[in-house]
Amino acid sequence: MNYGYMGKILRVNLSKEEISFEEPVEAFYRRYFGGRGLIAYFLLKELELGIDPLTPANKLIFACGPVTGAPISGSGRNSVGAKSPLTGAYGEAEAGGFWGAELKRAGFDAIIIEGKAAEPVYLWVHEEKAEIKDASHLWEMEIKKSQETIRKDLQDNSAKVAQIGPGGEKMVRYASVINDMSHAAGRCGMGAIMGSKNLKAIAVRGVKRVNIANPESLRRLARWMARNVDDVAHGLHTYGTGGFMDVYEETGNLPVHNFRDGEFPNVDLISAQTIKEHVRVGMGTCFACAVACKKEVKAEGPWSVDPAYGGPEYETLAALGSNCGVDDLKAICKANELCQKYSLDTISTGVSIGFAMECFENGLLNKEDTGGVDLSFGNAEAMVKMVEMIGERKGIGDLLAEGVKRAAERISNGAEEFAVHVKGQEVPMHEPRLKRGLGLGYAVSPTGADHVHNIHDTFLEPKIPEQYKSLGILEAVPTEDLGPKKVRLFKYVMTWRSLNNCLVMCLFAPWSVQQKVDIVRSVTGWNTTAFELMMVSERAINLARIFNIREGFKRKDDWLPPRFFRPKTSGALSSTAVDPEKLREAKAIYYSMMGWNEQGVPTRTKLEELNIAWTADEISVE
Amino acid sequence: MNYGYMGKILRVNLSKEEISFEEPVEAFYRRYFGGRGLIAYFLLKELELGIDPLTPANKLIFACGPVTGAPISGSGRNSVGAKSPLTGAYGEAEAGGFWGAELKRAGFDAIIIEGKAAEPVYLWVHEEKAEIKDASHLWEMEIKKSQETIRKDLQDNSAKVAQIGPGGEKMVRYASVINDMSHAAGRCGMGAIMGSKNLKAIAVRGVKRVNIANPESLRRLARWMARNVDDVAHGLHTYGTGGFMDVYEETGNLPVHNFRDGEFPNVDLISAQTIKEHVRVGMGTCFACAVACKKEVKAEGPWSVDPAYGGPEYETLAALGSNCGVDDLKAICKANELCQKYSLDTISTGVSIGFAMECFENGLLNKEDTGGVDLSFGNAEAMVKMVEMIGERKGIGDLLAEGVKRAAERISNGAEEFAVHVKGQEVPMHEPRLKRGLGLGYAVSPTGADHVHNIHDTFLEPKIPEQYKSLGILEAVPTEDLGPKKVRLFKYVMTWRSLNNCLVMCLFAPWSVQQKVDIVRSVTGWNTTAFELMMVSERAINLARIFNIREGFKRKDDWLPPRFFRPKTSGALSSTAVDPEKLREAKAIYYSMMGWNEQGVPTRTKLEELNIAWTADEISVE
Repeated sequence: MNYGYMGKILRVNLSKEEISFEEPVEAFYRRYFGGRGLIAYFLLKELELGIDPLTPANKLIFACGPVTGAPISGSGRNSVGAKSPLTGAYGEAEAGGFWGAELKRAGFDAIIIEGKAAEPVYLWVHEEKAEIKDASHLWEMEIKKSQETIRKDLQDNSAKVAQIGPGGEKMVRYASVINDMSHAAGRCGMGAIMGSKNLKAIAVRGVKRVNIANPESLRRLARWMARNVDDVAHGLHTYGTGGFMDVYEETGNLPVHNFRDGEFPNVDLISAQTIKEHVRVGMGTCFACAVACKKEVKAEGPWSVDPAYGGPEYETLAALGSNCGVDDLKAICKANELCQKYSLDTISTGVSIGFAMECFENGLLNKEDTGGVDLSFGNAEAMVKMVEMIGERKGIGDLLAEGVKRAAERISNGAEEFAVHVKGQEVPMHEPRLKRGLGLGYAVSPTGADHVHNIHDTFLEPKIPEQYKSLGILEAVPTEDLGPKKVRLFKYVMTWRSLNNCLVMCLFAPWSVQQKVDIVRSVTGWNTTAFELMMVSERAINLARIFNIREGFKRKDDWLPPRFFRPKTSGALSSTAVDPEKLREAKAIYYSMMGWNEQGVPTRTKLEELNIAWTADEISVE
Repeated sequence: MNYGYMGKILRVNLSKEEISFEEPVEAFYRRYFGGRGLIAYFLLKELELGIDPLTPANKLIFACGPVTGAPISGSGRNSVGAKSPLTGAYGEAEAGGFWGAELKRAGFDAIIIEGKAAEPVYLWVHEEKAEIKDASHLWEMEIKKSQETIRKDLQDNSAKVAQIGPGGEKMVRYASVINDMSHAAGRCGMGAIMGSKNLKAIAVRGVKRVNIANPESLRRLARWMARNVDDVAHGLHTYGTGGFMDVYEETGNLPVHNFRDGEFPNVDLISAQTIKEHVRVGMGTCFACAVACKKEVKAEGPWSVDPAYGGPEYETLAALGSNCGVDDLKAICKANELCQKYSLDTISTGVSIGFAMECFENGLLNKEDTGGVDLSFGNAEAMVKMVEMIGERKGIGDLLAEGVKRAAERISNGAEEFAVHVKGQEVPMHEPRLKRGLGLGYAVSPTGADHVHNIHDTFLEPKIPEQYKSLGILEAVPTEDLGPKKVRLFKYVMTWRSLNNCLVMCLFAPWSVQQKVDIVRSVTGWNTTAFELMMVSERAINLARIFNIREGFKRKDDWLPPRFFRPKTSGALSSTAVDPEKLREAKAIYYSMMGWNEQGVPTRTKLEELNIAWTADEISVE
């Protein structure tokens, strides 16, 4: 009996309208686990070199992991991967909700989508089967209506739907894939890949149960979380993300005005606390999760917001709020709702708008360019308008839909200075000028700027978190440090956190390292250890990196945008910035600690050590 | 409260007759644990470069680990370390029994012995105190009498004694330290260091208990072992070591005639099964251990043997038996007893005698050299006689007491061909021509040829042991393979097994990887994981290597003796041998996988990654 994994992978070729099934052996699952491990494996094995991500040659992979769908907090996630239209590199995003667990229960660990449908279609996956179904009537529909229609078509009100809205259809380069209307696989533009394939949605319905090797042990863990969630999940359980906006503003972590400034006096107006008080109508959760950190907000009046789309996370509050100078909470909630409706990544959307605002203030864009919109920082109405225009690819929205890297190239005249991205992916809402280790993480991540599988240095002082001691990190390292001790900390923490993308599990379920080991053991029956899990993650990190090297990414691409090498104009970080020389050194140390050569290319022995020697043939490796 | 460690280190300067105490902080213990970690730390920090190991400048360190003395199988061990008089490199040996646990209970994690006493002394350690006591009357005494005398002097019949016999006093370069009369810290000549310091013994008496952080969890583990020991400890519990002599002979693993030949038809005469039937009178154990694998043998007649000295392990049966061509079990038991009495390592003793026998058969030694003894292979009487002569450093014994490397240099005329050692340490009783990974292990071990922290390839086919899956090793690799997959397997297994020398724990207590993690967690309260434990072990391996590099050891010293590059003259391995080119490649891969440069020197970033950047100053590191 398979525990923790179903054993089957569904392959759908939309061009040929072919559906097939693969059944890898257990050792394959134990080697690659799921999520990033599976996605990077298949992309490396199957993708032609140098393809345009938005052509039928790209493949889109939905992947669960060994704990997806197990009845335990944090297991309600799935990964989505492809070559990214935003970065041209390895692309991957994760989303919570119920869709991933449902896919498992429908009998599949992963879905590989190939080719492109002649006309809009959606996929209907149920009972170990799959059908390609017409979606002409769904095209251009926002996601709530689309989900309702699909469920009606299928006569199944419990079908779970992962889908794109018009933003994905129009291939906004940072379009997201939305699970269950409010959970976004946001980063890297995976929604654009769906759009490019004429794939509106994947509806799944599962009735199987994930086989659990040791149900009693898993129940013990679940009971522990149920009893302790209030203690160990701190603010998340009460407020969701965004409970530290004030601290972030004070310390300089909060991006303000496209990362330019530090002070944002009205930060309290857009905090999770204020949300709870004024617009929150409920807290949603993901499959089997006791943390339940998903805000549901409702608003009426000029910015009416439907709680069915959830509510803004911290990243959203900052990206569409302070980063655009906007302190109107309802406007942010509205923009968040629109991002869901259109299926747009709120981070990239917010950063793109902030970028446009700074261009506007500096005369690089004018009202003619914006169709008459006053794109000044702080203009809430303009911000909301921009989300719509991006989602529709209308006017300036069409340019911003390309992401800041491409938009800046088009605008030129120094606009590059305002384009805050790494490898083409817009930077999330945490400050490398404050958290130097995180900055290194932005620089070297295979997916470009990414805050999830990264360290957040400010939490590490003055005492190191107990959890990191489990990784052999016994001392705190100052947040501004970028020396070898920080790099060591970074390497281990990032490897550990990246594991979430293989399991696939949520970062916010506050399991200790050993508890996570115990979860995997209980679900799969594998006698795994933290050592093996770290290796699984490191393997996946290397697979993604090899993919990028194959696509031509070089050492110089592991770098931060110019903004971070200069101080903020105000606030806590007005006299400090990332030192490029120190970042260069830290990067070199990181490469070496990872077993990569000076160019950042994994050595052959490192690949052999990770049991992926086959990847050495994909690139030229010493 | 300290859990698992006492916090105190006892330092004794015998030249100055000074006793002092040190109290490292908890973070120190968590970083270096114990055993090799502590020993290598202090030797690197404190030993002058290039000293003669047998001078007062050397330091001798007895070290426990965090689980020593905890009431759980495998915890009854301690390490002994110094610069080795046999290899000139990092020297370390482990022994079981009760002495280590007693040292902990006396309040100490380690003892550092410095200088040299003017006259023979012994150390009396009890109740967190220590006294240097006269041992003139004990000198030249064999260990049973010596222990009796010490106990009488101290009026304490429960004092545990670690000591040397006349072999140690006379600085036989492979003299052992004997715990409790029958447990030898055999390898690397630690007994000779005691002798060089005029230190006859360390008697300890402890009344404290090791503080256990989670006694209930530890009890659960202990109960599990008590219930399952018959299943999981297979033959060990029934026979002790030496239950596979016949299989070893058949497969070629058994050394015969100084590793020259393969067939040994009378192998059954010297097996653990035969011992059980004919000479065994009991089975001893170590502190708190349910495995109880320590034979106690008794014989009368020409080879009378006192069971107080225990009985021969597999290594002894082969080294003094088949390797010398001897199939007289009682002679072997007698030789084993003599090795205890004199405190001689049975492996090095047997290999030295086998070497002399081959020299004798080839005319490099004659009866004049041997004092009339017919040193032919198979001459049981001669073998026993040689043990005595080595222990007394009499006649040819004085030459053989130097170990085969020095003896061969002295004899010259091609004797080097018969000297089966690595870095000066005689090779144990497992065959690199059969187990190619083990051969690599002999070559690269910091202590020279060592079988304990090593892989035993033949156990790995056709199925990989479940335990190794916990380390991410999912497939078996053929025993004759020396490619990257084998090196990977070797790296992880050797790192894991070397951990025993830091914990300090016994290899023979068959805990799974996760159980061992649980034991350390239960005893120490540290939220450790297999990942941290692997790092602790890797750190200690690197510390020992840095020590050797500092002493001038080079890449070329990581190599096997010539014997293994030619097939055996008979038996299963008569047409196969280690391919030097493949060994060279495997070594290069291993260096790289360890984060060492092409010369085998750890890179600075590897040392930084292991949180021992300070060692980079000890050597020139890139």
